[in-house]
Amino acid sequence: MSINKIKWVRSLRDKKTRDELGLFVVEGEKIVREVLENHPYLIDVVFALEGELEEFPQIQRINEKELERISNLNTPNKALAVVRKPENTPINKGLFLVLDTIQDPGNLGTILRLADWFNVKAVICSIETADCFGPKAVQAAMGSILRVAVQYSDLKDWFEQNTLPVYGAKLDGQNIYCESLEENAVLIIGNEGKGISADLLKYISHSLTIPKFGHAESLNASVATGIILSEFKRRQFI
Amino acid sequence: MSINKIKWVRSLRDKKTRDELGLFVVEGEKIVREVLENHPYLIDVVFALEGELEEFPQIQRINEKELERISNLNTPNKALAVVRKPENTPINKGLFLVLDTIQDPGNLGTILRLADWFNVKAVICSIETADCFGPKAVQAAMGSILRVAVQYSDLKDWFEQNTLPVYGAKLDGQNIYCESLEENAVLIIGNEGKGISADLLKYISHSLTIPKFGHAESLNASVATGIILSEFKRRQFI
Repeated sequence: MSINKIKWVRSLRDKKTRDELGLFVVEGEKIVREVLENHPYLIDVVFALEGELEEFPQIQRINEKELERISNLNTPNKALAVVRKPENTPINKGLFLVLDTIQDPGNLGTILRLADWFNVKAVICSIETADCFGPKAVQAAMGSILRVAVQYSDLKDWFEQNTLPVYGAKLDGQNIYCESLEENAVLIIGNEGKGISADLLKYISHSLTIPKFGHAESLNASVATGIILSEFKRRQFI
Repeated sequence: MSINKIKWVRSLRDKKTRDELGLFVVEGEKIVREVLENHPYLIDVVFALEGELEEFPQIQRINEKELERISNLNTPNKALAVVRKPENTPINKGLFLVLDTIQDPGNLGTILRLADWFNVKAVICSIETADCFGPKAVQAAMGSILRVAVQYSDLKDWFEQNTLPVYGAKLDGQNIYCESLEENAVLIIGNEGKGISADLLKYISHSLTIPKFGHAESLNASVATGIILSEFKRRQFI
């Protein structure tokens, strides 16, 4: 592997470079196999150790030392692919998730995995939200990073265009278990510490709360997102 | 601060020492304040920077350099307390959570915070589960580490004594949204990668599944726990 190629893969650790090149890195045999099988049109280049993923002739073979040099993981896992960011087509039906500055990339990745599980149509992130194509978020999202449509927008502009009802999770909202929840809707999730920003509150048409039965002060952002998405989708079985 | 005291606090990073001494460390002004206000009987010693938590006369004042030396955080946060592990009293009514080897301390802490929110009576962990008194788990659990009764047991022995109905999350279980769920019950959560161990499956009286609406292969263990606990508690509002 040439020094330049190593430098090029490593340069994708930097958000600015990812944005400029429209590329990011996925790692591990399982997700690389998934890209090869289901999203081959996104592939720029795949690197793997000798003997791994042998059914794919287009793979560039590297040795363990080279993999270590380009990997973002403490324990590199057999294969690494450089892929193009998926393109998003606009959608106007279904459930949408707006992330008002999720800062922890692990939370962000977990939320994308949830969005994939619950068939959320698109995730709209504030500009200040962690980069979903960074290594930690990609790791937590697993294959979902390739399937969920993610866009970064100025949220005020986005809400000005939106015509769907908007649900926001707030401490003083209505009991989510008892509220009627629309199928075509937007759900805002606020920042881990600060909640939903003051200048977005006016766009909320329905405030929701997960009732507290014990004493914890709050729930982790990705856990709260999971519980609320589950409630939205459960209504299909009533 | 004496070298011996610094060594003593740092020795609590080690599970064996925590077990021997029955002590663990909580960090950050917020949780230390909570211990001082609500659980003073658990306190062994509290260290804080000059000018912090001034209303509590029993605090030992240290400087920033000393705090850095004893802290487990990248950015030490004003105060640190060494506290005794809370003692558990046996309970036989309500909802119980059994963790069949949760390995990631962040997941474990998040689950304890959830257990606190949803008023779970006790969390029973397999011996192989991460230590809930380790620094990462304590950080993720926040104040809940002091409020939730946690015990480590041989799970087979525990189930042999148990008389409550046992629910287990499995890929081929019944749709959780439609099942009737008992108020006094045990819920088993399996390992992040492997699920529930083969030798515990026989104790499950009801298998549950969170329906999948999209394509993600699985949900994060703490997120799945949140969704299932929410379903158990929601039934109170029907």
